[in-house]
Amino acid sequence: MVGSLSVAVVGAETPGNVGTIARAMKNFGVSDLYLVDPPELDPEGEAYGFAGHAREDVLPDAREVEFDYLVERFHTVGCTAVTNEDETSHVRYPFRTPRELADSLGGVDADTCLVFGRERVGLTNDELARLDEICSVPAGADYPVLNLGQAATVVLYELRELTLDDTQHPDSIHERATEREIEGLYGEFERFLGNINHPEGKRAKTTRMFRRVLGRAHPTGREVSTLRGLLRRASGLLEHPERLVEDSED
Amino acid sequence: MVGSLSVAVVGAETPGNVGTIARAMKNFGVSDLYLVDPPELDPEGEAYGFAGHAREDVLPDAREVEFDYLVERFHTVGCTAVTNEDETSHVRYPFRTPRELADSLGGVDADTCLVFGRERVGLTNDELARLDEICSVPAGADYPVLNLGQAATVVLYELRELTLDDTQHPDSIHERATEREIEGLYGEFERFLGNINHPEGKRAKTTRMFRRVLGRAHPTGREVSTLRGLLRRASGLLEHPERLVEDSED
Repeated sequence: MVGSLSVAVVGAETPGNVGTIARAMKNFGVSDLYLVDPPELDPEGEAYGFAGHAREDVLPDAREVEFDYLVERFHTVGCTAVTNEDETSHVRYPFRTPRELADSLGGVDADTCLVFGRERVGLTNDELARLDEICSVPAGADYPVLNLGQAATVVLYELRELTLDDTQHPDSIHERATEREIEGLYGEFERFLGNINHPEGKRAKTTRMFRRVLGRAHPTGREVSTLRGLLRRASGLLEHPERLVEDSED
Repeated sequence: MVGSLSVAVVGAETPGNVGTIARAMKNFGVSDLYLVDPPELDPEGEAYGFAGHAREDVLPDAREVEFDYLVERFHTVGCTAVTNEDETSHVRYPFRTPRELADSLGGVDADTCLVFGRERVGLTNDELARLDEICSVPAGADYPVLNLGQAATVVLYELRELTLDDTQHPDSIHERATEREIEGLYGEFERFLGNINHPEGKRAKTTRMFRRVLGRAHPTGREVSTLRGLLRRASGLLEHPERLVEDSED
């Protein structure tokens, strides 16, 4: 994302929700919070209590502004659970899902503001009509209305690739063992099958099953070397049962 | 998903978080909630206050169980913000992101339980060691620890395709105009350019620009017919300026 991303909350009634949104912003790398007609945010109260580390910056740095300021200053995205069903009204249609929004904002140079509305009624039609795009979190048809703080969390989570340089996860999310290590394990497995007198006619099939299990699991190097070591140890003892006695005499 | 999906919360201290998780479950089509060592859930208190419509079923139907029950009964997924960095410890590694978890559970016939831990310390290493898979929400390296209720919301959101038959959104998320309608608009646009005496040498280029704008916007049928109507009206008046007078005499 070339431009900036900020969040605005319009007419929130519950300080805790403002704190929850501030925390999600901090978790997903967004720092500018605008509040339109906010509740009082007592530093000893729920907003700060719910904000986690965002109590140190996002929340105290939040700016109280008019709705007009958002419209004039930003490419605005109005977030709503309730969309129109078709093109007969443009107020809440067409809309984008958060994932589609992430894709579409990725290549755009625009200072964008995600606008969230009140706890009970969300953004009004008059407000949405003045915003540039509509975003809606897909949820169950029976009960699609997420809590304000949870809706903001989902949208910010989906936009994280635009706002975060690094996540807490290691770069390579999964250190898979090398093919050579894995093939070595299968060799050891075959030796093991021989040592436990697994019927010769079944060995290939059983090895294939083992290959399928590990093939799906993408084992790490350590997992493979541990498994291989266990099989090697078993085969060693099966090939030299006299060592079993020595072992137990240790 | 062929099996069932349920949620367990271990050692939550704050009733409000249990309510938030219950609400996210209801939003994303999950109904079975298990509580290990829960706080007291007063029907007049925060858990019910935060649960939205889940106060009618998910929350009152929640079952208090032992941790062992989860391990024995389900394919368990332990959710944690803090992962191990590499394969040297298996307690929190390898892990899956929520999206990877959704992909991997999609084709599996397993009764699966998502297990979430305490507000401050999450699930302990001893608890995670007994669970089958690890899931971790990617967040900012500086502050990756989501609030318990928000973490559960993100994971349930990502798994929604496994648990929801229908979302609130219309099936066709965007009713794009037909090519014929859109091409008709371009024709009307060219007529309009002629009528405003746009330089002939520039008309093709300007039409191409208009085509690019609408090509990216994927306009609805109604949007196209409105724009076409406006241009037709303008061209009509430009071609018959005498009507301007008649109009103003209406």
